[in-house]
Amino acid sequence: MQTIHPAAPAAIAALAPLLGDRLSTSEALRDQHGANEAHYPPAPPDAVAFPETTEEVAAILRECHAHGCPVTAQGAGSALEGHHLAVQGGIALSLARMDRILAVHPEDLDAVVQPGVTRSRLNEELRATGLMFPVDPGADASLGGMAATRASGTTAVRYGTMRDNVLALEVVLADGRIIRTGSRARKSSAGYDLTRLMIGSEGTLGIITEMTVRLHGQPEAVSAATCRFAGVADAVDCVIATIQSGLAVARIELLDEMMVRGFNAYQGSDLPEAPHLFVEFHGTPAGVGEQAQAFGELAGEYGASAIRWTDRTEECRELWHMRHQAHYATGALDPGKRTLATDVCVPISRLAEAVTHAQDLARELRLTSTIVGHVGDGNFHCGLRVDPTDADEVARVHRFTAALAETALRLGGTVTGEHGVGLGKIAHMAEEHGDAVAVMRSLKTALDPKGILNPGKMLPADDEG
Amino acid sequence: MQTIHPAAPAAIAALAPLLGDRLSTSEALRDQHGANEAHYPPAPPDAVAFPETTEEVAAILRECHAHGCPVTAQGAGSALEGHHLAVQGGIALSLARMDRILAVHPEDLDAVVQPGVTRSRLNEELRATGLMFPVDPGADASLGGMAATRASGTTAVRYGTMRDNVLALEVVLADGRIIRTGSRARKSSAGYDLTRLMIGSEGTLGIITEMTVRLHGQPEAVSAATCRFAGVADAVDCVIATIQSGLAVARIELLDEMMVRGFNAYQGSDLPEAPHLFVEFHGTPAGVGEQAQAFGELAGEYGASAIRWTDRTEECRELWHMRHQAHYATGALDPGKRTLATDVCVPISRLAEAVTHAQDLARELRLTSTIVGHVGDGNFHCGLRVDPTDADEVARVHRFTAALAETALRLGGTVTGEHGVGLGKIAHMAEEHGDAVAVMRSLKTALDPKGILNPGKMLPADDEG
Repeated sequence: MQTIHPAAPAAIAALAPLLGDRLSTSEALRDQHGANEAHYPPAPPDAVAFPETTEEVAAILRECHAHGCPVTAQGAGSALEGHHLAVQGGIALSLARMDRILAVHPEDLDAVVQPGVTRSRLNEELRATGLMFPVDPGADASLGGMAATRASGTTAVRYGTMRDNVLALEVVLADGRIIRTGSRARKSSAGYDLTRLMIGSEGTLGIITEMTVRLHGQPEAVSAATCRFAGVADAVDCVIATIQSGLAVARIELLDEMMVRGFNAYQGSDLPEAPHLFVEFHGTPAGVGEQAQAFGELAGEYGASAIRWTDRTEECRELWHMRHQAHYATGALDPGKRTLATDVCVPISRLAEAVTHAQDLARELRLTSTIVGHVGDGNFHCGLRVDPTDADEVARVHRFTAALAETALRLGGTVTGEHGVGLGKIAHMAEEHGDAVAVMRSLKTALDPKGILNPGKMLPADDEG
Repeated sequence: MQTIHPAAPAAIAALAPLLGDRLSTSEALRDQHGANEAHYPPAPPDAVAFPETTEEVAAILRECHAHGCPVTAQGAGSALEGHHLAVQGGIALSLARMDRILAVHPEDLDAVVQPGVTRSRLNEELRATGLMFPVDPGADASLGGMAATRASGTTAVRYGTMRDNVLALEVVLADGRIIRTGSRARKSSAGYDLTRLMIGSEGTLGIITEMTVRLHGQPEAVSAATCRFAGVADAVDCVIATIQSGLAVARIELLDEMMVRGFNAYQGSDLPEAPHLFVEFHGTPAGVGEQAQAFGELAGEYGASAIRWTDRTEECRELWHMRHQAHYATGALDPGKRTLATDVCVPISRLAEAVTHAQDLARELRLTSTIVGHVGDGNFHCGLRVDPTDADEVARVHRFTAALAETALRLGGTVTGEHGVGLGKIAHMAEEHGDAVAVMRSLKTALDPKGILNPGKMLPADDEG
C-alpha cells in the first residue's frame, strides 16, 4: 500500500492487533472517509479506525503520538469546511461506534452521551421526557462534531450555541491521557475553562469521548410564522427591531429571494420570490400569544405582508424541516454544479449592510448565491453554486468568500459564526485575531507538541502569520 | 526598604520613570492593597502601580517579565478567596484608574468598558437606555475582577454568569504583548475560545484591560415574592420543582434560618426565623403574572406560607438590596468575630442533600453558619463566623470548608460556583480536576513561562498534584 503519511505504516502495524477489523485500510472505506459534503477535494486517510471505548481512543492516540502519525477525528462527516478530512493522511478516527446515550437526568436537565450520538437521535430518546436538546445545525450532525466545531443553528438566539449547552467533557489528549473537564454543576469558578477551550477546537487539542449536555424543557406552547418583505433590508431591519425590543424570539430566520427560488425548485412550491422571515416563539400560551402579537405589529411597521401564523406542532415541525433543507434547496439551482457554503456573523446593527453587500457581491461576480441565516444572532450563510471544472467560476467564488469574510471583520464581526475554520477560513485567522493567533499556537503546542491532532486545520502555519 | 520579592527593587526602579507618582511603595498604600474583606492574613505587595492605559499595563508587564517580578492585578478588592493578595510580593497592579465606559451600543445590546468600572456604575450609566448589565455578585465589584473570577450572582439562573456575558476582551499577556479575543459578534466558531480561557483565570494568564459585555433589556414587568417554609428541605424541593417545571425564574434565592436571624440582627427586622425563598420573574406583564401564579401554586404544594408578592420596582429593589447585604448581615451574628465565606455548586437534584449536610456539619462542629444561595443554579454560600485568635475554632472552620468541598464533589458538583479558587480552594483543585490540573499547568506555562502573573493562586504547586 502506498501511504500518504510516512508515519502511518508503523502506527497502523501497532494498532492492528488492538483493533482487529475495526482498523481498515480498504480503499473503499478510505475513500468514504476522505469524502465531504462540501466542495473540498477528497482526502482519503491512510486508515480508518473505529474505536468503541475511551480506552481504545487513548490507545490509538498513544501509538500515534509515539509514531508521530496524524489523527483526524470524524463524526457524521457533515462539516462544511473540511474539518474531518485527513489532509496529511494518517488515521481517520471515526467516533460513529461510540454512539450510546449513557444517562439522562431529567431532574437536572442534563444528559451524558458519547460523541457519535446525533442530535436527532438524542431528541428522539428525549421525546417522552418532555425535554429537548435545542442546538440544530442543518445537518443531523453528531454531538461530538457539533461540540468540536462550536456549532449552533436556528435556536441559538434563544438557547445558545454548543458553547452554552455543554457542561462537561471527557477528552483524550494527543498523548493518550484521559481528562475530565467541567462537572454536572450548572456553573463553576474552579480553574481554567477547559470545557470551552475544547469546544470549537476542531479536534486539534484533543478528542472528545464523552459529553454532558444541557437539556431544556419542551416549550408548553409554540407559535411560528412566515412573512414576506419587499426587500431584504426591510426584513433585516425588522429582525434588528425585534431583537432590540427584547422579544424572546426562539428562532428568527431570513431567506432571501434566491433562497426562496431554491425552495420552490426543490420542493415544487410557489412561494413568491421575495425575502421572507421565519420566526418562532416558545413559552406559556399567554406569553407566546403576547409575543406573537408584538412581533406581528413590528413586522407590519416594516411592511411585512402575508403573515401566516401557526401554533400546530406538526405545521411548525414541517416549517423547520423545510428550513433545514436549505443546503439541498440551494442545490436545486443551477443543476450540475456543487454548493459552496460559507458563513459570517456581524453585530446585529451591521446586519443589513452585510447582507446587502453579499447580494451585491454575488451579482457583481455573476454567481448564484442563496442567503439564509440565523439573523437574530447576526449570522448568515451564503450558498454558492459552483462548477468545479470552471476555473474562472471557482476563482470568482473564492473572491466572494474572501470579500465576505473581510466585510464581516470590517463591520466588527467574525469570519465564521458557526461553520468553523477547518480548511476554508485558515487564511483569515491572522486577519481576525492578530497576535492572538500566536497565543492559539502556543496552546496548541502545549497540548499537542508533535502536532498529530488534525494537522493542517484551523491555525495558519507559523510563517503565514 | 525591605522587599518581599527579590526581583521587586529592579522592577520598581525600571517602572518609576514611567509611572511617576502612580507607582508607590508607601507603607500606607501597600497595607491598603494588602488587605482583604475576607479572612486571609494581610499580604502587602512591594509596590502598587496605577496604570491609566493599556500601553502602561503592557510596559509594566514587559519590565516585570524581564526582571521576573510578580504582578497581581487588583480590581475593587472585594474577592472572597484572596485572589488579589500579592502573597509573593512584587507589584500590585490596580486597575482602579482604568474605569471609563468607552462605548454603549444600545442597537447591539453591548458596551465596551475598562476593567475598573464597577457593576453598579455601569448600570447607573445604562439606566436611561432601557438596558442593564445583570450579573450581580453581592459586592460592588469591578467588571474586570468579575470577569477574572467568572463571577455570577442572583440573576445567573436567567441571564448567565460572566462566562456568558462577555463577548470580547483586550488582554495584556505576561510578556507585555497585547491581544484581542472575541468580537462584537454574538457568536463565532473562529478559533480557540481565548475569551472563555481568560474569564475565570484570576489574573494568572493575562491582565484584562478592556471588555465588551452583553447588555439586556430592562424587563418590562417584574414581580418578586418572599415566602417561608417549615424546613430547608421543603424550600429546596420547591426550588428543584420550579427549575424542573421550566419556569423562567429570574432570581431564586434561599435564606436559611440562621441567615434570617442575621438579617434581623443587622437591620432590626423581625422575620420569623425559618427558611425563606426570595424569587423574581422578569418579562411581559401577562407572562410575569402567569409565572408568578404558577410559582405560587408550586410553593403551596411544598407548604410555603406568608407568600408576599410585589410588582413595585422600589420594593423589588429594596428586597434585593437587602439580599446583597448577606455578608454584612452574617457579620451581625457573634459580634467580634470575622466572616469566612465559602461556596459550592451541585447538580440541582442534590441540592437539598448538600444544604442539609452543611447545616448538620455546622451544628456538629459548633459553628455559627448562615446559608444563602443562588439555588436555581445549585449554588450556595456558607458564612461562617470565626474568631481568628481561637485556634480551635479556626481549625473547625477549615474542617467545615474542606468537608463541604468534598461533599460537593461527591454529589457531582464543584468546589466553587462563583467565588473562585484564589488561595482558599487550591487544595481541592487536584481532587476536582484530576489529571486536568496538569493540562491547566501546561497552559499556564505556555502563556506565563516565568510564572509572574498572580503566583501562588489557583494551581497547586507541581508536587502537590
